[in-house]
Amino acid sequence: MTKVTAQMSVSLDGFYAGAQHLGDGNWIDSAEAAGFFRITRWVTDAMAWRERQGFAGGEQDTNSDIIAESFQAAGAYVMGRRMADGGEGPWGDNPPFRAPVFVVTHRPRQTLVRQGGTSFTYVTDGIASAVEQARAAANGKDVAVAGGGRLVRQVLKAGLLDELELHVVPVVLGTGMRLLDADLDLAGKEAIELTPTRVVHTPHVTHLRYTVNGRSALVLDDRGSGTGSVAGRVTDPAA
Amino acid sequence: MTKVTAQMSVSLDGFYAGAQHLGDGNWIDSAEAAGFFRITRWVTDAMAWRERQGFAGGEQDTNSDIIAESFQAAGAYVMGRRMADGGEGPWGDNPPFRAPVFVVTHRPRQTLVRQGGTSFTYVTDGIASAVEQARAAANGKDVAVAGGGRLVRQVLKAGLLDELELHVVPVVLGTGMRLLDADLDLAGKEAIELTPTRVVHTPHVTHLRYTVNGRSALVLDDRGSGTGSVAGRVTDPAA
Repeated sequence: MTKVTAQMSVSLDGFYAGAQHLGDGNWIDSAEAAGFFRITRWVTDAMAWRERQGFAGGEQDTNSDIIAESFQAAGAYVMGRRMADGGEGPWGDNPPFRAPVFVVTHRPRQTLVRQGGTSFTYVTDGIASAVEQARAAANGKDVAVAGGGRLVRQVLKAGLLDELELHVVPVVLGTGMRLLDADLDLAGKEAIELTPTRVVHTPHVTHLRYTVNGRSALVLDDRGSGTGSVAGRVTDPAA
Repeated sequence: MTKVTAQMSVSLDGFYAGAQHLGDGNWIDSAEAAGFFRITRWVTDAMAWRERQGFAGGEQDTNSDIIAESFQAAGAYVMGRRMADGGEGPWGDNPPFRAPVFVVTHRPRQTLVRQGGTSFTYVTDGIASAVEQARAAANGKDVAVAGGGRLVRQVLKAGLLDELELHVVPVVLGTGMRLLDADLDLAGKEAIELTPTRVVHTPHVTHLRYTVNGRSALVLDDRGSGTGSVAGRVTDPAA
């Protein structure tokens, strides 16, 4: 059955890139890029990713297997407009997706058909519509939210995400573009509960996969109490 | 050899409690508490923690072993003032630490000696001094930064932390008190590099332990490029 999945490489403090590049100058010289390349180094080192780019070499290891697996699982992609625009040049005539990609955008544009099975369809009526179109195109495989981070967050916020995998890179950036940021619009006593389904540990990255169970209220219970009263649990105000 | 360690339970989005309780009303009814109790549920369920509180029952499992291990490893603690104040009542005559605790505060106060080996010494000349005093008192065991989150962050920022363990709980809070927050004061192309040393996975929490290697500049390299130029790596602007 088709799942809607997302995966993202993040620093231990939750950033997928450095501080957003907004001003003049080349993106490649920005703090955003410096953080992004540090966080995705394990990807660009992996043979499975390099093959898809047409690059030689790379590591044939657990990380490469995880990338190969996610390419394999995806029958269609949903993508944010900034990522699609930024990739259009570098991806060239034979982009790495080899499946239909649905780009969420405000600007109508004719579908772009590339080699190798990749096409870019521009969806102007919202995220849910893009996910539905991708689901219809996925042929029983998964719909992968390719990114960027804001789109992953919006899909999670909208309750459309079934599975989230974070590739946690052992670095702290301090500032940058954060995947799970405040605009999830959770209330003060509300949370999105997850169930961990797989953890894979390698020296350069730890892969944490979760099923998304959805929003629920945070309810105090007395499980930590010695007395049956939740106040008995207050031994560590943690601040 | 004595290491300076810290461990903290956090949500997948990096919060150790809900939005900070600042106004009127009881802390226990606040969003901060609701988030805190969700994040620390695995702790309050663990037998090793409950024993130290004088509570009956609890789970005797991997999580409990991890708590027992960290109590065992700590020869002295460093603690923030808010945590020490909040705990003073609930911890009672026989606090769970059973070792000297050095409280970082601006308010001088006489050392408070409790039963079972716990004492609270109030240090008014800064974090480095508190860490040094704890090191001298630790008798070859580790100095554990007990919390709260702000103190852990300050110790990391000051370059005084050797080991950081995050207990990642499968929940997204959206807002709250974040452990690794912006006041780490890292520059745009600077990061704190870590080395993962242990991952332990359980259904309710994933334990990620890191050695802290310290600050270093983020340098672009050409490892992801097919051409030898870093620009060749730009296939995923991730935003």
